Amino acid sequence: MKHTFAILFVFLSLHTFSQINDSTIIKSQVAKAITELRDFVAIPNDALNGDDIDDNIFWLKKKFSERGFNTTELETENHPLFFAALPLEDDKPTILFYMHFDGQSVDASKWDQPSPYNIVLKEPSGDDWETHPFDDMLEDIPYDWRLFGRSTSDDKGPIVMFLNAIDLLKKESTEMPFNVKVILDSEEEKGSKPLPKAVKQYRELLEADFLLITDGPMHSSGKPTVVYGCRGITTLSLTTYGPIKPQHSGHYSNYAPNPGFQLAQLLASMKDKDGKVLIPGYYDGIQIDDAIQEVLKSVPDNDNEIANKLAFKTAEKVGSFYQEALQYPSLNIRGLGSGWIGKEARTIVPESATAELDLRLVPESDGNRLKKLVKEHIAKQGFQILNHIPSKEERLKYERIVTVKEGSVTDAFRTDLNNSYGNFLVNTMLENFNEEIIQIRIMGGTVPIAPFINELKIPAFIVPMVNHDNNQHSPNENLKIGQLAYGIRAFYGLLSSKP
Amino acid sequence: MKHTFAILFVFLSLHTFSQINDSTIIKSQVAKAITELRDFVAIPNDALNGDDIDDNIFWLKKKFSERGFNTTELETENHPLFFAALPLEDDKPTILFYMHFDGQSVDASKWDQPSPYNIVLKEPSGDDWETHPFDDMLEDIPYDWRLFGRSTSDDKGPIVMFLNAIDLLKKESTEMPFNVKVILDSEEEKGSKPLPKAVKQYRELLEADFLLITDGPMHSSGKPTVVYGCRGITTLSLTTYGPIKPQHSGHYSNYAPNPGFQLAQLLASMKDKDGKVLIPGYYDGIQIDDAIQEVLKSVPDNDNEIANKLAFKTAEKVGSFYQEALQYPSLNIRGLGSGWIGKEARTIVPESATAELDLRLVPESDGNRLKKLVKEHIAKQGFQILNHIPSKEERLKYERIVTVKEGSVTDAFRTDLNNSYGNFLVNTMLENFNEEIIQIRIMGGTVPIAPFINELKIPAFIVPMVNHDNNQHSPNENLKIGQLAYGIRAFYGLLSSKP
Repeated sequence: MKHTFAILFVFLSLHTFSQINDSTIIKSQVAKAITELRDFVAIPNDALNGDDIDDNIFWLKKKFSERGFNTTELETENHPLFFAALPLEDDKPTILFYMHFDGQSVDASKWDQPSPYNIVLKEPSGDDWETHPFDDMLEDIPYDWRLFGRSTSDDKGPIVMFLNAIDLLKKESTEMPFNVKVILDSEEEKGSKPLPKAVKQYRELLEADFLLITDGPMHSSGKPTVVYGCRGITTLSLTTYGPIKPQHSGHYSNYAPNPGFQLAQLLASMKDKDGKVLIPGYYDGIQIDDAIQEVLKSVPDNDNEIANKLAFKTAEKVGSFYQEALQYPSLNIRGLGSGWIGKEARTIVPESATAELDLRLVPESDGNRLKKLVKEHIAKQGFQILNHIPSKEERLKYERIVTVKEGSVTDAFRTDLNNSYGNFLVNTMLENFNEEIIQIRIMGGTVPIAPFINELKIPAFIVPMVNHDNNQHSPNENLKIGQLAYGIRAFYGLLSSKP
Repeated sequence: MKHTFAILFVFLSLHTFSQINDSTIIKSQVAKAITELRDFVAIPNDALNGDDIDDNIFWLKKKFSERGFNTTELETENHPLFFAALPLEDDKPTILFYMHFDGQSVDASKWDQPSPYNIVLKEPSGDDWETHPFDDMLEDIPYDWRLFGRSTSDDKGPIVMFLNAIDLLKKESTEMPFNVKVILDSEEEKGSKPLPKAVKQYRELLEADFLLITDGPMHSSGKPTVVYGCRGITTLSLTTYGPIKPQHSGHYSNYAPNPGFQLAQLLASMKDKDGKVLIPGYYDGIQIDDAIQEVLKSVPDNDNEIANKLAFKTAEKVGSFYQEALQYPSLNIRGLGSGWIGKEARTIVPESATAELDLRLVPESDGNRLKKLVKEHIAKQGFQILNHIPSKEERLKYERIVTVKEGSVTDAFRTDLNNSYGNFLVNTMLENFNEEIIQIRIMGGTVPIAPFINELKIPAFIVPMVNHDNNQHSPNENLKIGQLAYGIRAFYGLLSSKP
């Protein structure tokens, strides 16, 4: 059936629904969601700019109030959080939804469109994209076309899906078996630094039976996905030292200590050639029994496909397959620097060499414990550890020095695979979509929601709503239009099914 | 005695000399050299700019012609070389002097003066410098004051010293026991690429009994220095690979191969903790007997002072002291790069990691042989060596890949310590300065004059004329005024003594 938007809206307003799976009803709601998402994305949302955040909160207040929510700003040490709730009923369990409306900073010059904040509609065309005016969707809305713009996927898209699912529920006067609370983060992309204190401060307001995070991409298979946890993160920055100023390599190479070789020797001692960490105790506490193995293996990853897409012959061997690797903490060199490389290279003995490491954490591996193990290992290699750039006196005193800068720790979380709310989520999604639900024990990335879990002591789940290939955090972020339909159906299903 | 410049010149023109060591005569010639050097430095000399080179050649023609030289430009594949010779007499041996008039590119913003090409006069004042107008030298010329400007030391200063020594010789009508040829390079700072072909082409014109290079700094003790050789250089650039595009470290760390760890393991395998190269054969052919040891030890280096100045506790142990270390080829990490470091660091598995190496060569270690040894070592570590960025097919085919880019080889040279012209140089300097002459078997840096030696088959020596702390190649390059006196005396002595 092909309708113009105008006709669809008339049709909508005259029709009474009984069946949410009616594709026409969903599609007309998707049309409304597209308009709303264009409007929302058009408000820049870089948390470096307080005005951006205020403008977004103004929009959110209006949109949530229109749907019958009570809304409020929660003041924090930095930007306010946005909170909304439908009127509470004592006898119902409460879901707390977590999403965020801030976005990664943009470099407009790297996007294939005039502004990252003005959504552009594109049709896939081989390996390329064909841009369309929005009027090309007047007759039909192709679900494989995409909306390109900052935060279309991460994470404004899911907020708009949620709002439009509420519309459908209201139109149908569906009785919701849950109390609904929504907390929207304003600086997730900057690390959610004020969140821990804020959750403590607004503890009572946020109380709930479980937490549902709708952020991040679905499994690459595109199948409905429920995630039970995510890895945490911490960082280490290691710097070794050569001469106090860069020296002419003719005069001082093979005489002045070379910081690059020192760093290479230190890093090489940390891992074997298979990528396994050699530092004693690094993997302590992790046990993967048969039941867990079964869940991990049920995820329809294709390790060959990953290797092919990323173009490497053999993966590291921390786990024997992709999902198993994610059960372990990582030790990753994310950056190396010393002197200059490429055309800028100069014939010098550099003054220092730096390795930036990130450590993804699992619940068994406390970030502070791992950092301590790494530091003990460094000391065992004969390096003096300092937390600052060495003075001349320190350079003359110690044979070999490493300055270690430690990043803060964001904890991992992992809800039990047998949790009853988890079962509810999986069953509801199964009924709603009538296809296999992918259960992911822990995902590789980090969502900074540990403060909720630590403070509120509630189970938490991630139900991702957006396509996995959305260019999250990068130029040309996008949302497949079909995901709007998926998300509206998923939120609708969760909020209309009895736990 | 204190005179104004004007008085000094009158004095000069009326006086007949018998004694070059008369400090008044020298000082008056230094005054003239200062004026000439200011004039010469004021002509920019960046070999990236052909007009700069032409302007300098115009000046050189005039100055050498005035002193009775026949001059000519030698056309090359790039900029012309400048050649000058005094009328030849068949029965005299010939010295070929090599200097260069081009300078390192400048970033004027980094200099503590308005223009690097307008010499500024400065007096040392504690750790700082006090600027003076040139009129402050009307009464006396303080030898510890300095002239700041590009190429004051490297290498226009020595050219001006040479010209002014010729003036003194002419004024005294001194019979020179040598034929004198001068070749001035126009792109030494850019690697002297046209030189090898040019030397071959102009072989007959350049024929001489020995080559004297007056470039580079004197020994840090400030004592008269004769250098018998210099190390050569070649480079290697090594790049290892991870995923074909940078990946989110949450999703792919401890799964996708990490190029930083691969590179660290590779580099760590090349050297031990004392800085000695572990690659078999790297130090082959080098023998340091007691006689050589004696010469090396006679250089008044203070290894403690070097360590203190460069701020490290212990030097690498390739040699047991500084001069000994220089007898061996080096393997230096001059640059490392992968992903981002510092504030730019991102949570990624980088796509690649690169190490830039330079290898300083000695006569025993042919650059191509050393590069071959390093590549064989890399292959033994299990890496596939490519000379290009791997294609996707190659990434999928080989477990671990290193792209190796090889730089060209500039050979080392080393003239025998017993060479008769070497003895002549040392004896003449000894007579002239009446203090210990430092003999350096090989210096660490590289002067690209191997083409002369390879083609003309003549012994070569470096007699440096400038202060060691001249900020060569850097902002605030300078020449101590006393070095002008030193250089004029040295050239005078060499050109007036019988071999």
